[in-house]
Amino acid sequence: MTADRAGDRREEILRAALAMFAERGYRGTSLDAVARAVGLTRQGVLHYFPDKQRLLAAILARTVEVGRGDLPPHRLQEDVPAQLAAVVAHNRAHPAYAQAYSVLMAESVVADHPAREHFRAHYRQVLDEMTRGYTERWGARLPSGLTPHAAAVAVLALLDGMQQQWLLDRDRTGDPETMRAVLAVLFGTESPGPPQ
Amino acid sequence: MTADRAGDRREEILRAALAMFAERGYRGTSLDAVARAVGLTRQGVLHYFPDKQRLLAAILARTVEVGRGDLPPHRLQEDVPAQLAAVVAHNRAHPAYAQAYSVLMAESVVADHPAREHFRAHYRQVLDEMTRGYTERWGARLPSGLTPHAAAVAVLALLDGMQQQWLLDRDRTGDPETMRAVLAVLFGTESPGPPQ
Repeated sequence: MTADRAGDRREEILRAALAMFAERGYRGTSLDAVARAVGLTRQGVLHYFPDKQRLLAAILARTVEVGRGDLPPHRLQEDVPAQLAAVVAHNRAHPAYAQAYSVLMAESVVADHPAREHFRAHYRQVLDEMTRGYTERWGARLPSGLTPHAAAVAVLALLDGMQQQWLLDRDRTGDPETMRAVLAVLFGTESPGPPQ
Repeated sequence: MTADRAGDRREEILRAALAMFAERGYRGTSLDAVARAVGLTRQGVLHYFPDKQRLLAAILARTVEVGRGDLPPHRLQEDVPAQLAAVVAHNRAHPAYAQAYSVLMAESVVADHPAREHFRAHYRQVLDEMTRGYTERWGARLPSGLTPHAAAVAVLALLDGMQQQWLLDRDRTGDPETMRAVLAVLFGTESPGPPQ
């Protein structure tokens, strides 16, 4: 098999496992089921991913990478609310990854879950980066009066919570204008809507 | 068996299944595993819950009931941010239910998941109730400038997102003061912190 074809096969396994983790979670998905989905034996899958945890790690790396898109939420530009709205739009374009992220994150809160440390470290890192970024830009308080830490916690919770609402009910939720208005109020950077 | 003992046994199955759903999700948990956990046969469990979906429905009803506590988020009192903070404190006191809710909600976004309609209807109802409540109290705009609908979406997303952060990392997140300050800014009802 050429290197290219091996890479294709690895990618194929990754995508099949991602779809299954998104649907049944990590613990609800067996390596055998992943193997069946791509027409390989269990041994065939183990050739590319030596165990299920290694497969999980590859998927987590991919969901974080895709979730960040070209616009990492911690890198500040001029218009923070507009930038975060762009992150949301980017996630919308990759619903399978967004869903896998959401399901694995929810599942990982159990004490002995293999993704727990990954998500805990990821959230700590993102919160620290956002807090530092807001502090550099605004000092001890944002224009809204919030501390940089409180704003970072709130922004991350909003992104996760609104993504879940959208995954659940795409017809009725996920209006980008709602996200923009809420972020504008949280930051205190501009009026959330037209004057009354 | 007396009615009391039958009620106890039903409650025992419900609690065991709740813990397993919280850990492995609905699809990752079999009725056989639930039966083993409570020392019954599969037939024994089916005596109390005729199928797995009926068991899920009972658990969902319970998590919503517990999550609402004595302080339904849609019933407005004088100090809305303080009241929502009380809802959060209540959920903290019931982490198993909070976790089951979070995992089942995340899992349910898949098209054919049996809890999908439950969660979709639940979120629509809660959003509508909150939007109506905010409109009755504040009219077309909250003091922050947000529309009642945007505020409702944001509050619900914040509650879900901050609960997930807390479930993941209980030592570093979940400060009630953070929640209170963020809600105060979203509503625009008071200053989020001491003057600078």
